[in-house]
Amino acid sequence: MKYPNSIKKPTARITNYANRGMSLESDLNITNSYYLESNVAVIYKKPTPIKIVKVCFDAKKNATITEAYFKLPSTTDYNGIYKGRYVDFEAKEVHGKKSFPLTNINKHQINHIRSIMEHGGIAFVIVRFTILNKTFVLKGEDLITAVDNKQVKSIPLSLFESNGYVIEESYLPRLDYIKIIDKVYLGGQK
Amino acid sequence: MKYPNSIKKPTARITNYANRGMSLESDLNITNSYYLESNVAVIYKKPTPIKIVKVCFDAKKNATITEAYFKLPSTTDYNGIYKGRYVDFEAKEVHGKKSFPLTNINKHQINHIRSIMEHGGIAFVIVRFTILNKTFVLKGEDLITAVDNKQVKSIPLSLFESNGYVIEESYLPRLDYIKIIDKVYLGGQK
Repeated sequence: MKYPNSIKKPTARITNYANRGMSLESDLNITNSYYLESNVAVIYKKPTPIKIVKVCFDAKKNATITEAYFKLPSTTDYNGIYKGRYVDFEAKEVHGKKSFPLTNINKHQINHIRSIMEHGGIAFVIVRFTILNKTFVLKGEDLITAVDNKQVKSIPLSLFESNGYVIEESYLPRLDYIKIIDKVYLGGQK
Repeated sequence: MKYPNSIKKPTARITNYANRGMSLESDLNITNSYYLESNVAVIYKKPTPIKIVKVCFDAKKNATITEAYFKLPSTTDYNGIYKGRYVDFEAKEVHGKKSFPLTNINKHQINHIRSIMEHGGIAFVIVRFTILNKTFVLKGEDLITAVDNKQVKSIPLSLFESNGYVIEESYLPRLDYIKIIDKVYLGGQK
């Protein structure tokens, strides 16, 4: 198995808890590298949007950014292609164990998910309840229904359990969310 | 016409030369905002990839990045969805008037374009010859053919003229490359 530079080979997990220290982002990066290497899908995390204010150059013309600020993202973090389909998602970790607060996703990202679905893309969120060590896919449609109900400020765990799909964790791929895309969007049933 | 924040309303062009000072990137940003606002396509430029080394926080916990470096991009700059299809491209300005040096696109980007085509996506480059004030779409297939011919170090203007497609400039959309996608990839012929 060849790994791209800077991605360490994941070590085998002994129990369900061994993985706890690993962030959802690292798990997804490892998973996406695996999908890329094994020619399953081409999905990348977008770089963090940054407003660059000052750049200095040394004698060799190497640039160092010396003043910059984080910007609010206007789209989701991940997108790419799988079986010819456009795939787009946002990934979030939740520290509580009862619900996913909607403040975790900004308005631009919600509108982006809405547009992607209107244009025929596959859009969803991946939410990990860290304490429970459970990671779900929730379809964009279910997210939008919750957001459009103005009285709702968070999505309860029970909705993830009834409408969402648990992503199985394994050695490789670490978080096989493509299996869920196959099942949910490309012909299969839950 | 409603414009998104931070995008200025483009001023009307008087002659072909009025646009010369405007970079290809600004033209594409204006075009993509127009596509987004008029619900034609959802295509974004990815943020510049940056390696953040040091972040400082003030008393109000606002973050300022005080040391960061530019990273080599591993994918192209633009991607999104049009009529349900995954669209991916790189955009470059050339200052010479005879050819497009292949050093303008790094190996990771070439491999990315190759993978996107293998997975059924629409991949191309947009190249502007600044001096000639001409902007072309060249299909990923033609780019790859040139790259795979090890003796070739640049793509001559004549290849853009024979195999590429000139993007018409207008008021709105500024650079209507979607028209070319329609013609070239979605049923039309040159």
